[in-house]
This record gives sequence, structure tokens and C-alpha cells, in this order.
Amino acid sequence: VSVLHVLDLVGVFVFAISGALVAVERELDWFGMVVLGLAAGLGGGAARDVLLDIHPPAALHDGGYLWSAVAAAVLVGVAAPQIVRLTTAVRLFDAAGLGLFVAAGTTTAIRAGVTGGGAVVVGCVTGIGGGVLRDVLAGVVPVVLRRELYAVPAVLGASLVVVADKLDLHGGGVELSSAALVIVVRMLAVWRNWHAPAAGSSWLHRRRARRGEV
Amino acid sequence: VSVLHVLDLVGVFVFAISGALVAVERELDWFGMVVLGLAAGLGGGAARDVLLDIHPPAALHDGGYLWSAVAAAVLVGVAAPQIVRLTTAVRLFDAAGLGLFVAAGTTTAIRAGVTGGGAVVVGCVTGIGGGVLRDVLAGVVPVVLRRELYAVPAVLGASLVVVADKLDLHGGGVELSSAALVIVVRMLAVWRNWHAPAAGSSWLHRRRARRGEV
Amino acid sequence: VSVLHVLDLVGVFVFAISGALVAVERELDWFGMVVLGLAAGLGGGAARDVLLDIHPPAALHDGGYLWSAVAAAVLVGVAAPQIVRLTTAVRLFDAAGLGLFVAAGTTTAIRAGVTGGGAVVVGCVTGIGGGVLRDVLAGVVPVVLRRELYAVPAVLGASLVVVADKLDLHGGGVELSSAALVIVVRMLAVWRNWHAPAAGSSWLHRRRARRGEV
Repeated sequence: VSVLHVLDLVGVFVFAISGALVAVERELDWFGMVVLGLAAGLGGGAARDVLLDIHPPAALHDGGYLWSAVAAAVLVGVAAPQIVRLTTAVRLFDAAGLGLFVAAGTTTAIRAGVTGGGAVVVGCVTGIGGGVLRDVLAGVVPVVLRRELYAVPAVLGASLVVVADKLDLHGGGVELSSAALVIVVRMLAVWRNWHAPAAGSSWLHRRRARRGEV
Repeated sequence: VSVLHVLDLVGVFVFAISGALVAVERELDWFGMVVLGLAAGLGGGAARDVLLDIHPPAALHDGGYLWSAVAAAVLVGVAAPQIVRLTTAVRLFDAAGLGLFVAAGTTTAIRAGVTGGGAVVVGCVTGIGGGVLRDVLAGVVPVVLRRELYAVPAVLGASLVVVADKLDLHGGGVELSSAALVIVVRMLAVWRNWHAPAAGSSWLHRRRARRGEV
Repeated sequence: VSVLHVLDLVGVFVFAISGALVAVERELDWFGMVVLGLAAGLGGGAARDVLLDIHPPAALHDGGYLWSAVAAAVLVGVAAPQIVRLTTAVRLFDAAGLGLFVAAGTTTAIRAGVTGGGAVVVGCVTGIGGGVLRDVLAGVVPVVLRRELYAVPAVLGASLVVVADKLDLHGGGVELSSAALVIVVRMLAVWRNWHAPAAGSSWLHRRRARRGEV
């Protein structure tokens, strides 16, 4: 059992907690909690494996991923109020999960022969896909598309791995640097309350203002 | 043409009826009715085949599945009010479809070399995935995550196949026992009005009560 | 660089514009704009490649697709109001994208050994899948299921390719005829304001009328 594998399981666990918490918020049942936990924890990696033709997906092959996600859902089921209060810790773990998933996903894509831009996409899908699946299943617009500065650190981290690969740099050092970059930028965004600009907000606002809708 | 294949086509047909009925409820157009019929009838099996790298998916390879789903949508288009009245029959067929899909999906996953927990997940995805896709496309939170005791029979049925496999029991008898277990538990849940407990409802309720929201 | 490849890139570009415009309407952020652009532009082709086991998907392998989609999103970000005014041009390009994607998707499916009905499904998924993914991510019921006569031209175009294949006719001429058929029917529907009939609307309306709900 390598350190990276343990970090990977921690990432699944933390993402699964985010899924189970959404199920509690949306007042789904216990099964919905487990499903959203599995979707959030394993969805990004499964999407990566399907896109890259890695079979069977790690989530199905390695029981550790599955039980990690189920354990997170059960933990939320019995201790949701305590977890909700640990806001900073949850966000830090979530940023760590994002960083690890983006770094690992981008590296896997490069190894599978995907070009630079495609590897960035696969890395972001690995890091963000689980949260998107969680939100689509819960019937809300994915949070990553709406407010949080969540995607920018993912793109930066994935790009770092791709640039390193162009410079013929590989290995655990690159992955850890990429994950660290993601975590630092993400936590800065949380701490300083940074947000991505709204898409075309200025002209939309002006158009509405002209129509007297604002 | 084996008995199991005919049962499989019946499962697709019944699930496709559920999809077409959702389209009628949501006031979509005729094409939406066919698409939701196809999604509900074929989505679970297609997701299973993509996850397990079975190509081409049975839904594309075997025309019978496709026409079974299209026929169900057309039937709903011309006879929706009559079908809606057959509540018990529709539910019984739906439970039968669930049982057959779960049993077949879990067996396929085990044959593809997936581990026990993963095979249960694939079995449940096969049985439930079509309904989830139907609801996501129709813009509602999947019913299986919300109210109905639908997932518990699926998990039980899939687990039966996995346990039988550990005991070196295989073949049609195991699959039929699994399907029967799913059908009996599901129909008991319908008949006795069993529901899954809400996720973390107790603490959420208490928190809201403290805030005076309830 | 063949003419068909350039047309393909134009299709991705135009579909990506539709995705980015939805992000502006839904007031998502810049990242959401790029994601919906990528989803609309590349989603249909990626779904086709995953279903047909073509790896890696063209969207990841060929950087042109990716940059075409990103360029469209950036263009919308800086010039949304101008683009919105070009209604007819946008619709014509959109119809062209639909036609090219349907023709190419159906041809690819036939080459991969999929049967007639399945090839029509794959062709429609290629042409329509991106728009469906765009709308699901944006939290709205896919527009193709609701109002627009968008699917009928897709089914017609895909069927033309399948029928031609049965008659042993292949090649660029068939693909261009199929694309032209899609474009003409689609633009006629836009011009004459044709709509698909609502699913089961007559009986639903009558039922509601009996209950005094209308």
C-alpha cells in the first residue's frame, strides 16, 4: 500500500462526505445518501477511466474505493451535525481531494497518450466530475459552474503536470507539486472569498437595465 | 431465443413504459416520450456495458431491445390513460424488470472479473440506472433517491448473487432466485407502504426546530 | 486537413457557442461558460466514442476540437450581445452542425458494426447528445425533448445513411446528402414554426378538464 494510494482513498472519502451532506440538505433517504456519496467520491475517477478506456474502472476493481465512499456516507448518516460544524477542516480535505484527483487524473491521461489540452480536460474531469454528478443527481446546477472558485485551481494544477511533461519531468514530485498548487490556490480562494466573474454578466445586466427589468 | 432473453426484453419494455409515462406527465413532446422510453429501458444496461467494457452495448447490437423500447413508447402514446389505471400490473412488471436486470447485471459483472462490492454496484446500476437517467433528463430528482423503497431490494438481490458466487453456486437457478427475492421485497414494500428513512432527518429536523423553521 | 474535418470543427464551434450562450442566460461564471461550451460542442461525439469503444475519444485526441470549443466560449464571453442578434445565422450554423454530426455519427456506427436501428440511435446521440448534456448541466429539461422540431430531422438524416448502407451506397456523397436533408428539414421547421406534438397531450388535457383543473 503506497502513500499515494492512501491519499487517493482519503480523497474518495472526503468527496463522498460532500455527497452525503448534499443528500441530507436535499432531504433524500438513506439510499440517496449512499448513492450521492458514491457518485461524488467515485464519479470523477470512473468518468476518467471510461474516457481513457481503463477497464475495469478502479472504483469497481479495488474494493477500498467503494468501502471508503460507503464509510463516509454512514459517517454522515450518524454524525452530520458534528461534520457540518467542521467547516474549515472539511474544506481543507476537499481541497486536498481536488488536488490529488487532478494530479493523478492528468498524469493517467498523459500516460494513456492524450495530448496536452485533452489531458487538462481529463484532469479536471477527474477532480470535478464527482461533484458535478452529485449535483446533477440532486437536481441542482453544479456548484462548480456557479460560484466557487473551484475550477481555476484545477486547471492550474493540471496545466502544471502537462508543462512538466513537456519538459520531460515526471514522477511523484510533479504530482505532489501539482496537488500542492491546487490546494494553495483553492484555500486562498476560500480564505480571501475569491469568485469567478459571471459569464457575460455586464452585457446581460445592461440589456436588462435597458428593459427596466433590474 | 432463450427464456431469459424474452424476460430481458419484457424488462426493457416495462421500464420503457415508465419512461414514456414520465414524458406524458412532464408534458414533453413525442420525441421526448421515445427518448425517455429508450433512456429508462436501455440506460441501465448501457451504463453496465460501458463500465464493464462490453462492446458494442447489447442495446445497440441486438435490435430487439431497441424496438421493445420504441414499442412501449408508442403504446403509451396511444393508450396512456388505460395504462395509468393498471397501477398494480405496472408495478408488478416494474418489480419484475428490476429483479431481472439486477440479477443479470450482477452476474455479468462477476463474469467480467469485478470484485464482490463492485458487482453489487454494477447490478444496482443495471437495475436502477435507467430510471435515474429518465428522471435526470426529465429534470426531477431521481425517484429512487427520494421515497420509494426501491434500492433495498436491488442491493439484496445483487448481494445474493455475489454470496452464491463465493459459495461457487452459479447458473440460472441463482439468477432466478435473486430476481424472485427482488420482486418479493419490492412488492412487499409497495403493499405495506414501506419507505427508506430520510437521510439525517432527525438532526436536520432538530436544527430547524431550534431555529423555529418548523 | 480534409474538407469534412473542417466542417466537423465548424460544427463543434457552433454547438459550443450554443453552450456558452446558455451559461450566460443562466448567469453561471466564466468557467461554467467554458464547461457548457465544451459539453455542447464535444459531448455528442464523446458519447458516440464511448458507446462504440473508440479510444481515445476524438475530442481528447485531436486538439482542434478542444480549442474550437474553447474559442467559441471566449467569443461568447466578449461578444454575447452581438451573437445573440445574429439569430438566423446562429440557427443556420446550428442546423449545419446537427446535420454534419448526425451524418458522421451514423456512418461511424455502421462502420463499427452496429445494426440499423442502433446506428440511427448513435447518429442521433452524436447530433443531439451535446445539447442534452448542456441542458442537464444547466439544470433545465433538454430543449430537444420539449419544443423544437430538432429530433425529427436528426432521425431522418440518420435513417438516410442506414438505408443507403443497405443499398450498398457509401462515401462522402451519402454523408453530404444526409447532412443536407437534416439542414433543410430543420430550417423548414424553424421557418414555418413547426413543432412536435405534445406527448399524450390530448388525454392528459381531457383528464384535467374532467377534474376541473383546466
